[in-house]
Amino acid sequence: MNRGAPVKSTAPDTTAVRELLEEGRALTTPALRAAVDRLAPPMDTVAAYHFGWIDADGRPAEADGGKAVRPALAVLSAEAAGATPAVGVPGAVAVELVHNFSLLHDDLMDGDEQRRHRDTVWKVHGPAHAILVGDALFALAGEILLTEGGEHAARAARRLASATRRLIDGQARDISFEHREMVGVEECLRMEGDKTGALLACAASIGAVLGGADDRTADALEAYGHDLGLAFQAVDDLLGIWGDPRSTGKQTWSDLRRRKKSLPVVAAVAADNAAARRLTALLTADAKKSPAEFQDFDEAEFAERAGLIEEAGGREWTEAEARRRHVAALAAIEDLSMPDRVRERFRALADFVVIRER
Amino acid sequence: MNRGAPVKSTAPDTTAVRELLEEGRALTTPALRAAVDRLAPPMDTVAAYHFGWIDADGRPAEADGGKAVRPALAVLSAEAAGATPAVGVPGAVAVELVHNFSLLHDDLMDGDEQRRHRDTVWKVHGPAHAILVGDALFALAGEILLTEGGEHAARAARRLASATRRLIDGQARDISFEHREMVGVEECLRMEGDKTGALLACAASIGAVLGGADDRTADALEAYGHDLGLAFQAVDDLLGIWGDPRSTGKQTWSDLRRRKKSLPVVAAVAADNAAARRLTALLTADAKKSPAEFQDFDEAEFAERAGLIEEAGGREWTEAEARRRHVAALAAIEDLSMPDRVRERFRALADFVVIRER
Repeated sequence: MNRGAPVKSTAPDTTAVRELLEEGRALTTPALRAAVDRLAPPMDTVAAYHFGWIDADGRPAEADGGKAVRPALAVLSAEAAGATPAVGVPGAVAVELVHNFSLLHDDLMDGDEQRRHRDTVWKVHGPAHAILVGDALFALAGEILLTEGGEHAARAARRLASATRRLIDGQARDISFEHREMVGVEECLRMEGDKTGALLACAASIGAVLGGADDRTADALEAYGHDLGLAFQAVDDLLGIWGDPRSTGKQTWSDLRRRKKSLPVVAAVAADNAAARRLTALLTADAKKSPAEFQDFDEAEFAERAGLIEEAGGREWTEAEARRRHVAALAAIEDLSMPDRVRERFRALADFVVIRER
Repeated sequence: MNRGAPVKSTAPDTTAVRELLEEGRALTTPALRAAVDRLAPPMDTVAAYHFGWIDADGRPAEADGGKAVRPALAVLSAEAAGATPAVGVPGAVAVELVHNFSLLHDDLMDGDEQRRHRDTVWKVHGPAHAILVGDALFALAGEILLTEGGEHAARAARRLASATRRLIDGQARDISFEHREMVGVEECLRMEGDKTGALLACAASIGAVLGGADDRTADALEAYGHDLGLAFQAVDDLLGIWGDPRSTGKQTWSDLRRRKKSLPVVAAVAADNAAARRLTALLTADAKKSPAEFQDFDEAEFAERAGLIEEAGGREWTEAEARRRHVAALAAIEDLSMPDRVRERFRALADFVVIRER
């Protein structure tokens, strides 16, 4: 039996992860490019820019196309069910298309001008193209999965459609939270489970589903992905406040500037101590300010809020939450039989997600 | 053998169409409402507003939710394949969800403030909700079809995904045409075949596919829907220039204000006569104007362009095109065996699409 060790005591095996991500990309990218080539001009060009295959002037580029954790998981999950990695590829492509559809729309809705250190699609090609190309990638996802996914494609497509709807539901609640004075910890976790957990859960099981895995196997892999998603999001929430702009590619205090009710914030407010009460008073006053007044805040004012969140225990709670989810993710698959090499890769990926970039 | 008579000589049987559309709505609306109820707040409310079930303040309403031609077709196509109308319902709901997803995004991209004589969703609930709720309806479409569509759901979902991608491709080209000086007639017809024909083709065959129809039947019904879509779009293009704002709910000369390269325009420009040459000179000069200069045009300037389009023969050509597609739609299904009542309904619907609102 493999018990997930607490993340702090595990030195993350970055070589294993790098190999795994590279193999996933090598298997998936040609299929992803072939899928995007099906789009009519000018959408094929806009999509190629988004994926980092060309620059804003249309010249070939090799920009950062993201870590591609989801395709790697999809391929790995096929192996977990005893199928070849190739069986997972249509699932990997479909999940990556859905993920990028959501990025295109989110960047536009959030007004984010940068992603992976490059201008976002709406900034370069305009809002209409960000909407349309996002829509097209979503449509392509279903098409690829259903035409190339083999005999179990319908079951996989059903799971992907439902994960996508949860992703959108989560994103809608995340945005609505920005306009609310306060949000509870449970409510925030449910939102993050939908926004981030649902698609990672689908990625971590879709290859197995395409390989004909039974429900027990698919559900265990899904549970792994869901917890991995929550760990990932907890780390993302920490980076959204304390991340180094040079590695995140975002502004300092980026989530605070947007009044995001992320985990460190809601956990801090829920604490019973003096810092929590001072924080709550500040945030209640902030909620009444217009976006323009809020934009005028200087660094010191955001630093004060970040300091109170930390003092109230929000940072520590979120770090512990990431570790809890890491343990839960590994526990979810400990009773599944799979080759040791595959299990080690699931573990290395989980370690990587929790430790990355900090 | 039933040969489609030219539309001018057919008095459209509006009672038959009204019955057909009402039956389609009666069968489909409860399933559509149940689907929309799956959305998390506030998206369920935004979607309910879009469908006309509630007003902007959330009070129950019975606003015009559209003619619902697509659900009626989906249900009818199940009957054409010898299945019960109920077999077509998951397809009807899925197609109607995709249609409304595209309306939500199109209204935002086009900046349209009114649809069916009510404020559009982005105008009432903001752009982010128009994007998100559109996305959610699209995801729901796949979910409903794959969970409730029965044993042939995957085949139907594959066709729907590919029709949706063509719809998006068509919409992208339609927008790109607005920024081009001129567009050819063939190019315009291909764009309209994707933008409008693909989803109507899917609607007209999806019930049959769910009912297990063979490829010949499904393809013939698809061809009917595709030609019906082109007829529909030709009429829409006529209304976009000469339609009465009181019945279309749009501005006068609405397509001209947007420099749309619709069928009457491209057909007029392609003609070999003096009016065509004067029109081409005017439109070439227009293409160089900024949107602001163009907005300053008065009614007389648009009327002049509309007059030249008519004089060059663009209006007449488009009217003839609608009739040609009407005949082709009916011819596509004349060799399929189906009950007379069902065939009459396909005919009545085609008549209705060509004759409506003029």
